[in-house]
Amino acid sequence: MSSIIRPVKGTRDFYPELMRKRTWLYDHMRRAAEAYGYQEWEAPIIETLELYAAKSGEELVKEQSFVFEDRGGNEVTLRPELTPSLARLIAQKSRQLPRPIRWWSFGPFWRYERPQKGRLREFFQWNVDCLGTDSLVADAEIAGIAVQMLKNIGFKSDQLVVYVNSRQLMDRKIAELGVTDAEGKGKVLRMIDRIDKMSRDKWHIYGGELGLSSSQINGLEDILANKDLWKEAPELVEFFSILDTLGIRDWFEYNANIVRGLNYYTGVVMEGRDRAGDHRALFGGGRYDNLVADVGGDEVTGVGFAMGDVVIGLIAEEYGLLPETQASSAQVLVTVFDADYMAASLALATELRAGGLTVEVYPDALKLGKQFKYGDRVGIPIGVVLGPDDLAAGKVAVKRFADRTQVSADRADVVETIKNLLDTAA
Amino acid sequence: MSSIIRPVKGTRDFYPELMRKRTWLYDHMRRAAEAYGYQEWEAPIIETLELYAAKSGEELVKEQSFVFEDRGGNEVTLRPELTPSLARLIAQKSRQLPRPIRWWSFGPFWRYERPQKGRLREFFQWNVDCLGTDSLVADAEIAGIAVQMLKNIGFKSDQLVVYVNSRQLMDRKIAELGVTDAEGKGKVLRMIDRIDKMSRDKWHIYGGELGLSSSQINGLEDILANKDLWKEAPELVEFFSILDTLGIRDWFEYNANIVRGLNYYTGVVMEGRDRAGDHRALFGGGRYDNLVADVGGDEVTGVGFAMGDVVIGLIAEEYGLLPETQASSAQVLVTVFDADYMAASLALATELRAGGLTVEVYPDALKLGKQFKYGDRVGIPIGVVLGPDDLAAGKVAVKRFADRTQVSADRADVVETIKNLLDTAA
Repeated sequence: MSSIIRPVKGTRDFYPELMRKRTWLYDHMRRAAEAYGYQEWEAPIIETLELYAAKSGEELVKEQSFVFEDRGGNEVTLRPELTPSLARLIAQKSRQLPRPIRWWSFGPFWRYERPQKGRLREFFQWNVDCLGTDSLVADAEIAGIAVQMLKNIGFKSDQLVVYVNSRQLMDRKIAELGVTDAEGKGKVLRMIDRIDKMSRDKWHIYGGELGLSSSQINGLEDILANKDLWKEAPELVEFFSILDTLGIRDWFEYNANIVRGLNYYTGVVMEGRDRAGDHRALFGGGRYDNLVADVGGDEVTGVGFAMGDVVIGLIAEEYGLLPETQASSAQVLVTVFDADYMAASLALATELRAGGLTVEVYPDALKLGKQFKYGDRVGIPIGVVLGPDDLAAGKVAVKRFADRTQVSADRADVVETIKNLLDTAA
Repeated sequence: MSSIIRPVKGTRDFYPELMRKRTWLYDHMRRAAEAYGYQEWEAPIIETLELYAAKSGEELVKEQSFVFEDRGGNEVTLRPELTPSLARLIAQKSRQLPRPIRWWSFGPFWRYERPQKGRLREFFQWNVDCLGTDSLVADAEIAGIAVQMLKNIGFKSDQLVVYVNSRQLMDRKIAELGVTDAEGKGKVLRMIDRIDKMSRDKWHIYGGELGLSSSQINGLEDILANKDLWKEAPELVEFFSILDTLGIRDWFEYNANIVRGLNYYTGVVMEGRDRAGDHRALFGGGRYDNLVADVGGDEVTGVGFAMGDVVIGLIAEEYGLLPETQASSAQVLVTVFDADYMAASLALATELRAGGLTVEVYPDALKLGKQFKYGDRVGIPIGVVLGPDDLAAGKVAVKRFADRTQVSADRADVVETIKNLLDTAA
């Protein structure tokens, strides 16, 4: 055999088995978002480079994006994130859209990074956003949607946690350190982002290299070590209180180390993690205030999160939460007795489908044993045979593969007979 | 207002209203494919240029594809069609996959063409394929799935038609004209493809330019004019007979002008059209025999079709078949009496969701009239109010917007009360 052409590195082939996992996640995302009245939307998958230049962080645009010139000479980007498109769509119809705007989306994204555990170049992402209100109810609501989805899948709050912080709180504390300019603030945020990623010594050295004094570095260390600091932040006090009302407070913890990068966020920020700490972040989000203005629209406040499909898939598998599914989507395999009876089998299949059943017909008149073997292998629960004696007597032979139950059904009752066998299956 | 950054030409912004149409199509595609036991799969959205160079027509690869170099210097393509990826996936697992392989898929594709009615640069496509059997049952089955989907949407056979031809039949007739080499055959197929697109005179001149003799051109004209020619082709006689058995013969017509391009196809070919002839093809497909071998795998026969989302959307709209949908996905709007009662409203919303209802909470304590106006505007059918008197009395005020029915429900019965109001809505 000659060698088969390879897929692009960092992409996945969604054979039916893997596709069923994706659909299972998508269905859970839909169910959680719709329970809160959110509407599904979707952006184009390619956008202009200009859009990301206006909105995204420099690393994302300059190093991690798939950018290319189309045949007309325009610079086009495979979207690395959804938020810039969200800003564009809101800006275009800012005055027509009733507020609050509650939107969710699920689709493909690309980042040119080294593929590794939990990280691919082509991945899917769930985005949930509530715009047009600065109420903390919205912040808590989107956190509630994420948790609802995790609960529906079967996760418990002792397995996963959502770390919460406030960018306003951090801004106030950073100012108290004597850092008030944007550049200095950026440096401190970078230090916060890295405290879990390096040793204490290295972190102090890194702070010095960034130009912070040792009293500032020590002050920052104290800020990050104070587990009760959130009590100084009215937005976090209220946020946690709403989570209490929603009955999901146990999923959330204040964590000063969470700042969620340098872009976008202006208020509450959050990040979902496995408590064991074995994986990358499950999801991340927070409040943004200037989003739409940056693409040329009016200012609109909002809050949202994004959850990739890769990490949650890994953790769900680890905790045994992925559903068992059959290979075929059919409930019934209609076999073909011999070539002369193909038309009779096709007519029976049409009747069964009209009765609401999903049906595969075996397309070739092979030996019945081979046809049954196929049905069993792809997980079709019921097989039927329509031979000359059955046809003459107005009967259909119906077989349940799992326990070899066999019934001779009247043709008029065959749909009901099959539905009963499906309902009573072990 | 400054000018808003523009989307890429030929792409669509799926605001919730348009997204609901896409989801409606997708659901109908899923339902039809699953009725026949097909399994959903999906390929990566980017593939190597090499894959398309091996499989796709020259025009598609060299003129219409979005091709670019990634940051690692590899030539990558935004997929213009799914079939090459299908061939690659089948080749990779050729020996593990039980046959017949019945797969369907729905996803985005790109072609760099001039955007016009029924044609965009970024579009969605439904693909349905049955591989691993040369039985004409499979050809008829995939035709049946396409028609089932069109019927489920509400189309009738006097509105749409599937034109059918046989590449084997055309090959035989072309050979009878004395054209037996591949190049000559390609020229004749091009002439067949264009007979509907130019005047008779121009078509004859075009044939001469291609190097055909006038007796060959006249012979070809006779072949194409013969409406009964299909009776000479056993594969078409059997195909139409199976369609009869499936009860969908009235949707199909033999049409010698349909050849579906120069690539892939080796047997029955088909093309869905509106009978009025106002639109481009709805879908196209047929049997291919050499598909997998071209990407480096074993030979596998198959039959399939692809249906874009743009043309069917236009025709469904023209025939008034698009469903009416509400803007919000919520059944209930929980209003907020005043800021002090926000927690009470959030707790009620949580109860309603636990009872299986989809619920929006208004996130700000605006005047109730404003909150109701929002609910009505986004199409939420039911609004509830929880004021101090209601709370004290253990009651909830429930209002149906459409007819202004108002009920004071006991807190314990509120889920049931709302479900009754939803069920009895006009």
